[in-house]
Amino acid sequence: MSQLDPFLSRLDRARRASKRLATVTTTQKNAALEAIASALEHGVDEVVEANAKDLARGAENAIGEGLLDRLRLDADRLRGLAAAVREVIALPDPVGQVVRGSTLANGISISQVRVPFGVVGAIYEARPNVTVDIAALALKSGNGAVLRGGSAAEHSNRVLVSLIQRAITSTGLDGDAVQTIDEFGREGASRLMRARGYIDVLIPRGSAGLISTVVQESTVPVIETGSGIVHVFVDASADEEMAVSVVKNAKTHRPSVCNAAETLLVHRDAAERMLPRLAGELIGAGVELSGDDATRSAVEGVISADEQTWATEHHALEMGVRVVDSLDEALAHIERYSTRHTDAIVTQDYANAERFLAEVDSAVVMVNASTRFTDGGEFGFGAEVGISTQKLHARGPMGLPELTSTKWLVRGAGQIR
Amino acid sequence: MSQLDPFLSRLDRARRASKRLATVTTTQKNAALEAIASALEHGVDEVVEANAKDLARGAENAIGEGLLDRLRLDADRLRGLAAAVREVIALPDPVGQVVRGSTLANGISISQVRVPFGVVGAIYEARPNVTVDIAALALKSGNGAVLRGGSAAEHSNRVLVSLIQRAITSTGLDGDAVQTIDEFGREGASRLMRARGYIDVLIPRGSAGLISTVVQESTVPVIETGSGIVHVFVDASADEEMAVSVVKNAKTHRPSVCNAAETLLVHRDAAERMLPRLAGELIGAGVELSGDDATRSAVEGVISADEQTWATEHHALEMGVRVVDSLDEALAHIERYSTRHTDAIVTQDYANAERFLAEVDSAVVMVNASTRFTDGGEFGFGAEVGISTQKLHARGPMGLPELTSTKWLVRGAGQIR
Repeated sequence: MSQLDPFLSRLDRARRASKRLATVTTTQKNAALEAIASALEHGVDEVVEANAKDLARGAENAIGEGLLDRLRLDADRLRGLAAAVREVIALPDPVGQVVRGSTLANGISISQVRVPFGVVGAIYEARPNVTVDIAALALKSGNGAVLRGGSAAEHSNRVLVSLIQRAITSTGLDGDAVQTIDEFGREGASRLMRARGYIDVLIPRGSAGLISTVVQESTVPVIETGSGIVHVFVDASADEEMAVSVVKNAKTHRPSVCNAAETLLVHRDAAERMLPRLAGELIGAGVELSGDDATRSAVEGVISADEQTWATEHHALEMGVRVVDSLDEALAHIERYSTRHTDAIVTQDYANAERFLAEVDSAVVMVNASTRFTDGGEFGFGAEVGISTQKLHARGPMGLPELTSTKWLVRGAGQIR
Repeated sequence: MSQLDPFLSRLDRARRASKRLATVTTTQKNAALEAIASALEHGVDEVVEANAKDLARGAENAIGEGLLDRLRLDADRLRGLAAAVREVIALPDPVGQVVRGSTLANGISISQVRVPFGVVGAIYEARPNVTVDIAALALKSGNGAVLRGGSAAEHSNRVLVSLIQRAITSTGLDGDAVQTIDEFGREGASRLMRARGYIDVLIPRGSAGLISTVVQESTVPVIETGSGIVHVFVDASADEEMAVSVVKNAKTHRPSVCNAAETLLVHRDAAERMLPRLAGELIGAGVELSGDDATRSAVEGVISADEQTWATEHHALEMGVRVVDSLDEALAHIERYSTRHTDAIVTQDYANAERFLAEVDSAVVMVNASTRFTDGGEFGFGAEVGISTQKLHARGPMGLPELTSTKWLVRGAGQIR
């Protein structure tokens, strides 16, 4: 065990610390979280200085204003991060929760309880706030964390992790529980994906490309968080006011996030009644529409849609519009193009609502509500670990319990078979 | 979609059939299962004839009496398989079960319900009974199944799958839901492991080598079922009668299975009191013991243990025995060698029992009970899909609910953010 290379010995430190962390009390973990929040407030100068180096390098490399903004940390944003850590303190500790249990006929008592995974790995891009986020969520759920935040935020992440480690240590827990592997570069990321025995679950957060690479290359189990090609289907019977309000909100409330709608499907009967108004309100709100022929003949100023339109997550005020002849055609379109994140129907028809709920195979399926509600906070989970678009372990918005595994405790009095 | 090669078009048929299967009623699925059970009873001649070819080839290739026995199907075993299918009929259908739900402050109702994964892939070795087992469990849980049973059982599996397909079709469901890919050989198995979009979860069943290959090579999510290096620790305070009875049962009741004990750890104080009797009873039951120096000086006829002793799942009447100075030393041994399947302590000490339960990081942790109780049937799950030794999605004995995912149903009245 003493001959581990620097990379594996970094992972091993997290692993060893995580074993101790698995059995400490909620009170102890909350004290460590409070120390982190306080360190973020008092370490502003140190963090901002490191962040300035990342920003300077980002500007040199002309990474663009959007990325620079995501990269930037200032006193205000650090206060925000500290507040987010305190929100995690307020959440119930999932560790030790009894999921189910029973007493067997022979008198043996069995109970399934939540336990930490061990070490959570995270691979993400250029957003130093994720460093604090994941560290806090992992700590509260009793997990170690190994973070790979990307070279663009390397200086910021190094200072943040060091500050987090010192804060944890100051409360008597083992600061080694949180580690960064940014300085090991791309090779470090590759090795992290294959570090079975050191990393128990890997969470990629970022672009579709990043997530797909992690899914393809990892031998460590992955929780895939998701890109969202999200659909709203306005059924024949839809109420016009509701349809306008839901579609506008789903598209324009925050177009850059994964639960924003990308494609509007409209039943032919509804299109006759309300497509000009629906499209007009979207265009009025600054949305650029690409539509099929039926849409373009009903509405002016609509670009011609192609295959790419339906297969793209725009992250912007752009939307594809297609008129369909039936619920079946809407379901077939969703089946083909949805990334199985969130899809919604607007309808007044009971049978169609139930059929949509039953047949759409997505993490979240909605009737008469904005797709923007697919969110851990909105669902009442307090903090959001991400939105899982896979079917194994977690699906949809993930809270702290999704960062745990379970084990069975069996208490007997000498029973044998 | 029409240009799929023969392999992918086989998978695609399962995928399409699984979509229809996801929404059929329990009554319809049970009727299909009853048709399968009945077909197994009436198809004896057909199956036995095909099985004879596999047996003949196995004998030619000198695969050994043990493997030949696992491969063999006769009227009796087929009746047994039919009975197992009828047990699956009796189990509650997990699909549609509401896991949790609430009404949000804005009036939106959310509920998380169980849904099928889609298509379950299975890779296993030379046991045609697994073909029927997995097909029945998949069908009841609304999943399609793609089966790769290994070339040794190719003829038997082909006839069994054809019989299952016809039985399903005879009840009006889509027989394409169950497929075999045995004829695509090793390349088929490799492609199955990378068939994202066609296969939703892959379950390997068989040797440690097979499982490790699947885990390393798959890009499809895997549920790792497990090999068991299972420990029993006899603590200083253990009751002698209980220790003898639990250890003997754990080792000798069925030594070939994964929940059988492989290593006995004995606290020095307990060793003084009872190791000669404990070892004597094991030897008397035909168990070959390998021990450390302390064990060998206390008991005659014990082979000298080495590193391999502790790291081997014997599947036989062989056991490693080690005397430890403390609970800490026992925990360290288990931490190092356990495959995290099942580990047990025999003790009368409350604090040690609770510490063992808290600190041993295994799927099932036991106090004063035989490790043989780690079993879906014993836990009251009715049927057993396998015993998961991974931490993601399922851990320990898996029942039908572990073959499902969930989705969130959101019902609103036009709410927006």
